[in-house]
Amino acid sequence: MKDNDLSNEKILTDRRAFFKRTASLAAVAAVSGTALSASSSSKDDPLIMHHAKWGQKLGDPVTKNRYGIPSAYEHNNIRRNTKLLASGNFQASIAVCPIHESEGIITPNGLFFSRSHGGTAHVDPTEFRLMIHGLVDKEIVLTLDQLKRYPRVTRTHFIECPANGGQEWRGPQFNSLQFAKGFMSSAEWTGVYIKDILADLGLKPEAQWMLAEGSDNSEMGRTIPVDKVLDDAMLVWGQNGEALRPEQGYPLRLLVPGWEGNLCVKWLKRLEFATEPFYCKEETAKYTALKKSGKAIQHFYANEVNSTVVTPSPEKPWTDLKDGDVIEIEGLAWSGMGTISAVDLSFDGGKNYVETNLKGLVLPKSWTRWSYMHTYKKGEVLLLTSRAMDDAGYIQPTVDEETNVLGVEGVYHRNGVETWEVTKTGEVNHVQIRS
Amino acid sequence: MKDNDLSNEKILTDRRAFFKRTASLAAVAAVSGTALSASSSSKDDPLIMHHAKWGQKLGDPVTKNRYGIPSAYEHNNIRRNTKLLASGNFQASIAVCPIHESEGIITPNGLFFSRSHGGTAHVDPTEFRLMIHGLVDKEIVLTLDQLKRYPRVTRTHFIECPANGGQEWRGPQFNSLQFAKGFMSSAEWTGVYIKDILADLGLKPEAQWMLAEGSDNSEMGRTIPVDKVLDDAMLVWGQNGEALRPEQGYPLRLLVPGWEGNLCVKWLKRLEFATEPFYCKEETAKYTALKKSGKAIQHFYANEVNSTVVTPSPEKPWTDLKDGDVIEIEGLAWSGMGTISAVDLSFDGGKNYVETNLKGLVLPKSWTRWSYMHTYKKGEVLLLTSRAMDDAGYIQPTVDEETNVLGVEGVYHRNGVETWEVTKTGEVNHVQIRS
Repeated sequence: MKDNDLSNEKILTDRRAFFKRTASLAAVAAVSGTALSASSSSKDDPLIMHHAKWGQKLGDPVTKNRYGIPSAYEHNNIRRNTKLLASGNFQASIAVCPIHESEGIITPNGLFFSRSHGGTAHVDPTEFRLMIHGLVDKEIVLTLDQLKRYPRVTRTHFIECPANGGQEWRGPQFNSLQFAKGFMSSAEWTGVYIKDILADLGLKPEAQWMLAEGSDNSEMGRTIPVDKVLDDAMLVWGQNGEALRPEQGYPLRLLVPGWEGNLCVKWLKRLEFATEPFYCKEETAKYTALKKSGKAIQHFYANEVNSTVVTPSPEKPWTDLKDGDVIEIEGLAWSGMGTISAVDLSFDGGKNYVETNLKGLVLPKSWTRWSYMHTYKKGEVLLLTSRAMDDAGYIQPTVDEETNVLGVEGVYHRNGVETWEVTKTGEVNHVQIRS
Repeated sequence: MKDNDLSNEKILTDRRAFFKRTASLAAVAAVSGTALSASSSSKDDPLIMHHAKWGQKLGDPVTKNRYGIPSAYEHNNIRRNTKLLASGNFQASIAVCPIHESEGIITPNGLFFSRSHGGTAHVDPTEFRLMIHGLVDKEIVLTLDQLKRYPRVTRTHFIECPANGGQEWRGPQFNSLQFAKGFMSSAEWTGVYIKDILADLGLKPEAQWMLAEGSDNSEMGRTIPVDKVLDDAMLVWGQNGEALRPEQGYPLRLLVPGWEGNLCVKWLKRLEFATEPFYCKEETAKYTALKKSGKAIQHFYANEVNSTVVTPSPEKPWTDLKDGDVIEIEGLAWSGMGTISAVDLSFDGGKNYVETNLKGLVLPKSWTRWSYMHTYKKGEVLLLTSRAMDDAGYIQPTVDEETNVLGVEGVYHRNGVETWEVTKTGEVNHVQIRS
């Protein structure tokens, strides 16, 4: 966190430092042929207790940090930005999540990706008000305390910017998992279903659309079909067991599970129900999908089924593996339209696939972890491609299948399969296989 | 976080400030008789957009905090300590979790309760080593990178200090949910099952016990039966999607799901397999249960089924409710022996019970949320008592049932039912009903 240089060059430097450290650690291991590689160091390491200098004096008191912070050794596990993503300033920009370091299906709040159109607002919760009006029987203005009296609901969902991977329609731009796929994160959200509020206020039958508007400098506005609102949309104040962070819309944001992240309006101030969409700036100039024909798709909401290999990745190479090491290939899959049903893995860039194991919690509209155990052959060159399916019946398209329909002029909703090349020295590169 | 006064007096002051603010917010609401109370403000509030001064200029760039921090308005949501818990110094002490502010079943890492016996050690992960020896076929010393090559497992579990509530065998000492029940937190943990490592190293058949030893100043040591180790014990490096925090044992701790928190040895340096328990300092002088007879119970491991009402609580009173408001009574239940099967709620201190609804994820050895909708009668006096059951067949005892067996001389494993008194003005007090 000491490092404030946000350029891409710096990230590459960080990565080189990372490789170097990994290599020196790996040097202690002497590797046996068939066992899991982790257990292979006993031959060379003397079985003596390591000199634990940190235990030789009393540690910090438990009262030192009443709100804790990460170890200083984790200074490289941070959100990142680059001028390529900044569009001129860092208020209308994104800081991407270090998903190469992610574990499980929760992103800690300090690392959750951050996107804003007018910068992070700092809202005083005692002055916060939410207005709900338009086609409801009873219009209302609520304080945060009043809103929190509704029955609480807690759900685990990812939020993904529809531009995740959207710089790369013409091919890889980032040799980095964080930059290629880190426009998303996942959390446990707590709040209230909007349908529960509407049951109380009364929704008029002619209401077909809901405007959500933020109180930030961009006055971010998006319109959502009422069917989705009544299905599972929530107003959330809690993220991973505490209040939302300022950059996530403190004290209240909209959560539209599985749909484009920009619909999850932050620093929320107003919900208005109407018969027609509102066609706000951010749903006409942005967040439409330009097709080959020159026409654009509007009302394009759900983040389609997608996946990526996390380990190995450009930031997590296999440079320290030895011939015969048994190693886990692990990744993420997610779908905004349902629950992940299966994830396949290819070693030849998508010609042949094997089925992987899903592991841990498999929840709807949520990150899902998958795993495949591999015996590494020194010098092998692999093209690792993952392909996810969901219970709505969708499967990730190939790159050609996707671009044949959508062209390469757009930014949003890219979910064609991704490929990592593992080189003969174990470095990992982002490549694109056209098929 | 500006506030460094850790005395209990200060906490009471904080609470008074909290009540005052809550009361002034509630003043904007005019309450209708039957609707959910949150929706009752429309009569008095003019339906105008609130003056959102925070949106009048550009906000902070997304690059401001590469690792995010909470809103400054949340400065009161912190871990706390008091001299009553300090046993002379704050290195051998505990900082308790603000569970009155908790949401869902994840505690953010910054608020996870922190207990140490020799202070927080700061371990350099590149110098970290784990030795596994004794009754294994292949003894080994592992680096952190080598350990991380084992297949990852992610599980959601609470960790609870067996002294949770242990100051209160003779009656309530803390008019505070945080202090009465905050010796616990919950997280999503990532690491490796020890059984997977042992499958690789080979465990000798005569091995019955495993010593786990920390590299902190107290050289914390505990012995665990091999049956539990082979069931679900893990070595964990990840907590809520990132590395463990220093006060949680960075870079590696033992996780013994559902069992006493002190068994989850932090800053782990050594696992030794043997035929007998090791009888370390912290499992003879501490963490045994003194009975009425003067004898102590050893090998007393699992945290028994337990529960608490979270809302309302001393820190979350009902002083702003009006007659007829419909309000959610919500709480937590947990068991170290299995999955929560039901939670009952009493309004008369345990004479009569109704069944509540479990909500969200209901996972083994994990926090479980429960809920009951209540119509508030202005001036009513309630004695709210919750009582949880688990699928191992256990139910929380009454206070008398518990003390008849265990006496009142002990500290650990208190799981008798707790009662909050709601006064006629909506204040909430911790009381004890002897039955």
